[in-house]
Amino acid sequence: MQTICAISTPYGTGGIAVLRVSGEDAIRIVDSLFVGRVALADTSANTVRHGRIERGGETLDDVLCSVFRAPHSFTGEDTVEIACHGSLYIQQTLLQWLVDVGAHMAQPGEFTRRAFLNGKMDLAQAEAVADLIAAQSKAEKDLAISQLRGSVSNELNSLRERLLHFTSLIELELDFADHEELEFADRTELTDLAGGIEQKLSALMTSFRTGNAIRNGIPVAIIGAPNVGKSTLLNALLGEQRAIVSDIQGTTRDTIEDTLVLDGILFRLIDTAGLRESQDALENMGMERSRIAAQQAQIIIYLSENGQWPMDIVHSGTLIRVLNKIDQLPLTNYQSPIAISAKNGEIELLRQELVRVARAGMQTTAVMLSNARHYEAVSRAHEAIVRVQQGLADGLSGELLSMDLQDCLAALGEVTGQITNQEVLSNIFSKFCIGK
Amino acid sequence: MQTICAISTPYGTGGIAVLRVSGEDAIRIVDSLFVGRVALADTSANTVRHGRIERGGETLDDVLCSVFRAPHSFTGEDTVEIACHGSLYIQQTLLQWLVDVGAHMAQPGEFTRRAFLNGKMDLAQAEAVADLIAAQSKAEKDLAISQLRGSVSNELNSLRERLLHFTSLIELELDFADHEELEFADRTELTDLAGGIEQKLSALMTSFRTGNAIRNGIPVAIIGAPNVGKSTLLNALLGEQRAIVSDIQGTTRDTIEDTLVLDGILFRLIDTAGLRESQDALENMGMERSRIAAQQAQIIIYLSENGQWPMDIVHSGTLIRVLNKIDQLPLTNYQSPIAISAKNGEIELLRQELVRVARAGMQTTAVMLSNARHYEAVSRAHEAIVRVQQGLADGLSGELLSMDLQDCLAALGEVTGQITNQEVLSNIFSKFCIGK
Repeated sequence: MQTICAISTPYGTGGIAVLRVSGEDAIRIVDSLFVGRVALADTSANTVRHGRIERGGETLDDVLCSVFRAPHSFTGEDTVEIACHGSLYIQQTLLQWLVDVGAHMAQPGEFTRRAFLNGKMDLAQAEAVADLIAAQSKAEKDLAISQLRGSVSNELNSLRERLLHFTSLIELELDFADHEELEFADRTELTDLAGGIEQKLSALMTSFRTGNAIRNGIPVAIIGAPNVGKSTLLNALLGEQRAIVSDIQGTTRDTIEDTLVLDGILFRLIDTAGLRESQDALENMGMERSRIAAQQAQIIIYLSENGQWPMDIVHSGTLIRVLNKIDQLPLTNYQSPIAISAKNGEIELLRQELVRVARAGMQTTAVMLSNARHYEAVSRAHEAIVRVQQGLADGLSGELLSMDLQDCLAALGEVTGQITNQEVLSNIFSKFCIGK
Repeated sequence: MQTICAISTPYGTGGIAVLRVSGEDAIRIVDSLFVGRVALADTSANTVRHGRIERGGETLDDVLCSVFRAPHSFTGEDTVEIACHGSLYIQQTLLQWLVDVGAHMAQPGEFTRRAFLNGKMDLAQAEAVADLIAAQSKAEKDLAISQLRGSVSNELNSLRERLLHFTSLIELELDFADHEELEFADRTELTDLAGGIEQKLSALMTSFRTGNAIRNGIPVAIIGAPNVGKSTLLNALLGEQRAIVSDIQGTTRDTIEDTLVLDGILFRLIDTAGLRESQDALENMGMERSRIAAQQAQIIIYLSENGQWPMDIVHSGTLIRVLNKIDQLPLTNYQSPIAISAKNGEIELLRQELVRVARAGMQTTAVMLSNARHYEAVSRAHEAIVRVQQGLADGLSGELLSMDLQDCLAALGEVTGQITNQEVLSNIFSKFCIGK
C-alpha cells in the first residue's frame, strides 16, 4: 500500500505539531528530507531522533522524529512521527515536501483504516477511536474507552458464537434432509437461546438513546422575544462572552451553538434570534433558523422578561418556561417556577432543571450502543432473531430457520467488521478527522 | 526548579495531541499515571513507550510517552512528551491529572525560558522560537530560522567582542591615570572601529523596517462607501468566504482581519464597515473602526463602484484607488488604472499592485532585525557609539569614552541576554504560547 502522510495534531498554531507518515516507504521518504546525526533507517524502533528538515539547501525546521517499525505501530506499518514547530506555514510546507518526495496525502481516518485492515483492531474499536477524539465529557470518554477496549465487540461476538454453534447444527440437519426424524439442534434449547439473545439485543437497542445523547450532547434551544436576554443567558451558562450582547434588538442573527457539561452530561446550547413580527430580510432569515432550532431541540428554554409566554412554539421536546431579569422585578411579582437573572449569573435553578430533565430521559447499562450504524445493525439482528423465535413457535423447517439465523449472524458481524464491504468502510472512515 | 506541564499542540480537537512535562520530577510524575509494560523510569532516553493513563481505576486514554533525559532535551531538563488522543476533554483532563500528582501548569514560554536559563540557547535564539511558531510565510520562516541559528547573535557578539577589547585597554589606561602620556588604546584604530560599528548598527536598524513587515504582515485596509463590494473583494483576495456578503447595506459591522501571502510577502487585509452618514449606533461604531484601520494601514485600498472617490481619507500610507464591478459597466466607461471585478475574481491587477507597492517599501540585507526589542536595544547601542565617535573627535578623556563604550556594550548584550533582568525575561516569554 502506498505511504501516506498527514498533520495529526489539531489545526492551528501551537508550540509543536506532529505529522504522521505511514507505509512501506515511510522511513525512506522522511530520511530524504531529514538531516541528523544518524539516519532514520539506522534508528531502532520506538526511538526519537533530533535533526533538521532540509531540501535543496533550504532549512525548514528543527524537528524530532519518532520511528516505529511494522507491525509494532498504530497502523501496523512502518511509521515516522515528525514533531515540528507549530507554525501553520511550517506544518503545511512540511506536508507538501513529504508529498513532493513520494508520500500521498492521507484520506480522513486512513491511518485507523489501515490499523483495521492490518488486524490491529476490529471495526467497532476503530470507530471508538473517532468517538474518543470527539469526546467532550467524562461520560463520552468512558463510553469510547469501553468500546475501544472491546465491550461492544465482545458482547456481540459472544452472542454470535453461541448462535453460530446452533446454526451449524441446523445446517447439518439440512445435509441429512432425507432423514426427517433427525434433529441435531435441540429446539427447546434453541428457543431459550433465541429468547436470551432477543433480550440482550433489545437492551442494547434501548441503551442507544442514552449512548447517543452522551455522545452528541442534548440539544437545548434558547428562544423568546427580542431582548429578553437569550444571549446573556447563553453567556451566563457557558461562563464566557460567547455571544455579542447589546441593548439593540436583533443583535443575534445567526444561531450560535456551544456545548456545556453539567454533572458530566453534555448539552448542546443553541442561542437564537429573537422572535417577533419583522419586515427585515436578514432578521427573518435569523428567525427561521430559531424556529428550526426549537423544532429539533430535546429541551427548549422559552425565556420571558414579564412572566408571559404568548408564542406558540412548535417542538417535540421538553419546554421549560423561564422568567429572566428578576433583578429588575419586585420580589413578589413573579410566580414562575424557574426565575433567574442571567445578567447577575443567578441561574442555578435553571442549571438544576436542565440536569433533572436530561437525567429523566436517560438510563444506563453496562454495554451501551452510541453509534447509529451499530444501532441499525443491531436492530436488523433483533428483527431476525424475532423471526427465528416466531419460526420455532410455528415449527418452521430448519431451512427457513437457517435463513433467519444467517441474517442475524450477518447483522452482528457487520458491527465488528467480520462482514463488511468497501462502501461501508469508506463511509465510516470518511467521518474521521484527517491525520487519525 | 519545579516540574511544569502544558498542552503543547494547537488548541482544539485533532487526531493526537501532545502534553509536555519538564523538570526534575517529570519522569516520576508521569510514571504515577502511566501503566505500560515497562515504567518510564526504566526507559532509556529518547525512547517511546506505549501504555495507558490511569488513576484510581479510571482509564483516561491510550498514550505514547517519549522520554528525554537532562541535559539532552529542549529545556535541558528531564522531559516526558505524552501523545494522547486529540479530544479536548482528554487533553484537559490529562493536564489536570498531571497537576493533581505534582506538576505545575507552565507559564507561557516557560519551556523555552528554561532552555535559555540552562544555556541551551541565547535570548535572541529563544525569541526566534516564538517567531518560528508565528511564521506564516517563507520569508518569516527564513528570518526566524536564521535568527534561531544565531545570525543576529553572531553579528552582535562579533561587534561586542571587538569593542570589549578596546574598552578593556581604555580601562587599563584609567588604572594608570597618573601617567597621562600612556595610551594603550590606539585612538586612530578606535576611531576606525567605532566608524565600522556605527555603520553595521545603522544597517541593522534600517533592516528592521523590512524585517518587521515580513514578520507582522503589511496592513492593508479596504475602505469605501457601503455596498461597493469590500467584503466581496476580501473574499476574492483570500479565495474563501471569510466575510458575510449580502446586498444589504451595513452587512459588515466589525472590522474583519485575515492574512494573505502574495509572492512570499505577508499582507494583513482589513475589511471595514462602509462609510456614509448614518444615525444608527451600531453602524457608527463600525465606521469609527473603519477610520482607525485606514489611519493605521500601510496600504489603503479605496474601493469605488462608479469611478468617484469623493471621501477624504485620513492616512499615512499608500492609497490605491480601485474601481470595482467592471462586470456591470460598459467597457469604455472607466479610466481607472486599477479596474477589477471582485465578484468574478478578476483582481489580478490589484494583486500585482499590492506586491509592487509592498516591494517598493522593502530592502533586504544578510542579517535582519525583526524584533522591536532588538531594534530598541540596537538603537541605544547606536546612540552610544555615535557619542564615542564624537568623543574621539573632541579628544575626550578615556574615562568619558569608557562610559559610552560600556553603554554600547550593555545595549548589545541585552539582545542576546548576556545582560538581562527578570522583568525583561518575563516580558519576553509572556508573549509565547503556553506549551513552548
